[in-house]
Amino acid sequence: MRILILGGDGYLGWPTAMHLSAQGHDVVIADNYLRRTMAQSIDAEVLFPVPNMHQRAAKWKEKSGRDIDVHVVDLADQQQCDALFAAVKPESLVHYAEQPSAPYSMLNDQASHLTIHNNLGVTLNTILGVRNHCPDCHIIKLGTMGEYGTPNVDIPEGWFELEFRGRTQKSLFPRQAGSLYHTTKIMDTDLLWYYCRVWDIRVTDLMQGPVYGLETYENDDDESLFPAFAYDEVFGTALNRFIVQAVAGYPLTVYGSGGQTRGYLNLKDTLNCVRLAVENPVDPGELRVFNQFTETFSVNELADHVQRVGGTLGLNVEIKNLPNPRIEAEDHYYNPDHTGLIELGLEPHFLTDDRLASMLDLVRHHADRINHDQIFRGVKWAAKNTTSDAGSSQVAAASSAAT
Amino acid sequence: MRILILGGDGYLGWPTAMHLSAQGHDVVIADNYLRRTMAQSIDAEVLFPVPNMHQRAAKWKEKSGRDIDVHVVDLADQQQCDALFAAVKPESLVHYAEQPSAPYSMLNDQASHLTIHNNLGVTLNTILGVRNHCPDCHIIKLGTMGEYGTPNVDIPEGWFELEFRGRTQKSLFPRQAGSLYHTTKIMDTDLLWYYCRVWDIRVTDLMQGPVYGLETYENDDDESLFPAFAYDEVFGTALNRFIVQAVAGYPLTVYGSGGQTRGYLNLKDTLNCVRLAVENPVDPGELRVFNQFTETFSVNELADHVQRVGGTLGLNVEIKNLPNPRIEAEDHYYNPDHTGLIELGLEPHFLTDDRLASMLDLVRHHADRINHDQIFRGVKWAAKNTTSDAGSSQVAAASSAAT
Repeated sequence: MRILILGGDGYLGWPTAMHLSAQGHDVVIADNYLRRTMAQSIDAEVLFPVPNMHQRAAKWKEKSGRDIDVHVVDLADQQQCDALFAAVKPESLVHYAEQPSAPYSMLNDQASHLTIHNNLGVTLNTILGVRNHCPDCHIIKLGTMGEYGTPNVDIPEGWFELEFRGRTQKSLFPRQAGSLYHTTKIMDTDLLWYYCRVWDIRVTDLMQGPVYGLETYENDDDESLFPAFAYDEVFGTALNRFIVQAVAGYPLTVYGSGGQTRGYLNLKDTLNCVRLAVENPVDPGELRVFNQFTETFSVNELADHVQRVGGTLGLNVEIKNLPNPRIEAEDHYYNPDHTGLIELGLEPHFLTDDRLASMLDLVRHHADRINHDQIFRGVKWAAKNTTSDAGSSQVAAASSAAT
Repeated sequence: MRILILGGDGYLGWPTAMHLSAQGHDVVIADNYLRRTMAQSIDAEVLFPVPNMHQRAAKWKEKSGRDIDVHVVDLADQQQCDALFAAVKPESLVHYAEQPSAPYSMLNDQASHLTIHNNLGVTLNTILGVRNHCPDCHIIKLGTMGEYGTPNVDIPEGWFELEFRGRTQKSLFPRQAGSLYHTTKIMDTDLLWYYCRVWDIRVTDLMQGPVYGLETYENDDDESLFPAFAYDEVFGTALNRFIVQAVAGYPLTVYGSGGQTRGYLNLKDTLNCVRLAVENPVDPGELRVFNQFTETFSVNELADHVQRVGGTLGLNVEIKNLPNPRIEAEDHYYNPDHTGLIELGLEPHFLTDDRLASMLDLVRHHADRINHDQIFRGVKWAAKNTTSDAGSSQVAAASSAAT
């Protein structure tokens, strides 16, 4: 199948490209390196050097004999995006091409604008590209479990039967998110569902939890094919940051009381989830929603797990509770459904002691690359008047559960 | 009170400015004439010539002795908007400054981009302006009843108690709209509610139905103070268009079977609703939602009413059912609550025969100004590949219930 991956340079984009290529698909990736540019602007580099997309595609060709077609394109620019769709005409696409950081979206006025305009612009351009050039293309959109927030009720997979005053209506489940970034994902869902109804586009919306991990099926023997592994507060995801902190001898940064609970998954599970979505397209006009995670943990449970397994490796891991810079519930009900992808065939990689030890061990072999300065900076979520530029001290602290 | 009206040039913006000024408030209006520019680009002029904002403010000063401060500002530009807020520091603001047309939002790719970027950009800039310069300012946001769509259940005023698997959660009522324009209003609500939670902004969201009428409390004796009265398919609202069609001898354009039901209100009621919201601010962090209409009609009921009253004035009014260019239900349940504004003191101006006759009569005195060419053009809502420019034949037909 001809598959276009939007955001093909990212932590998930590149591993997805290799994985789908290895399955025999014709893979095209597009990215404008926005995440790299943003990370550089706040001096937050990834742990392993990441070759550019052309270099990685060449490495992959060497290793697998298979081509991945690379396009450096600003997908938020309608003309550039339209030209890409006209050239590629994908049968399926995976849309990762968004400003992916909750803390970044809260950094300052400019960052909030970038988040809104980039994320909604790319999603709209994707819809227009599909309508104009490949109307049967199946759009696989990365959403986030953060769209739901932490309601005091169970969370279904996207849809539910609304009962109100004795009548019923099938409806998208109410959502309210914890950052501007997460709010743009709610807006994405609304936009996609609107165009499902009027233009019969096909969409799978993957409401993903925080992903952790470094190893994929295709990079085990070649560090140059590793994913972009961020461990800073703005772009790093929760467990990945704790692992680097543990190795660096930096006390694990738990915000508030640490009861914040989220659904997590291994990077390999993300790859399988996306592959399963690709292999099982939906009908025209359908918005299918999956909650994409394999197990839930509180921040305290994650921290304790890292501390215990770190100890068995000789690491002296401390845990430090810091004032919570986010506005979020620290003690809450959390019970989201997550059976849809299992029913399609997902076999989860749970967070066993062995897997955690393996991650700690891999990062420990590169401990000299850790920049302590980018681990913690600490500016509050609700700070007033942060109109300064992104390079200033106004770097928002990531919550313990950033995706 | 110092009140800033965003979108002060529009059909509702200018009458609101005069009305609040007449009540003794210090009124500042801001607009970049976007609606005028868009209307010109598709050759859709309003019925009465509308002086520019400076000219109208001068006329108002002559008539009332009161100043209305005028700013020509692109509110979607963050720096321009920030400078305005820094200068004005309003205590209350009314946010009308959006691309207001459902059909325009469906016109072509460029128009859909403009709708997303303008509407969300202005709303974000408004939030940032308030946070940075006047954090206690009460934001009165014009939403639309169209955010809810036409669910098969009653519609509460914004909020409801979600019951799901035996647990409950106060929640925004699920919404799904019938155009991209209406979808941006859903996104606005999500954005405002997010910043209520993190920055304690104060918001009243007025979910308004289609407004009709020409007369306000302040313009009765001076045509130069009349609101911008659009009757074309893109920018005209439902009843206003029917009235012009009736006067012009053009068969009333009912799309589909005409069972589409919406909540309507008189222009004077809009003014009173906004005034009541201004005079009754909400607490910090609160999002208050009112459903702003006074009575519901199906399109057929509206058409029949215009035909009957037109007949008493000697007009021979025909009704023509056309294929519906929209994707919408034509026969549906519709029972939205609308008690909140009544409880605040709203005294509705219902659509009596006399009021309808008075509108028909007023428009008849200006029948020579009606341009038949802009009444109907007819391109389908779900048209494929409408990437041509806005001046082309790809002018989307407005539905019978456009707001």
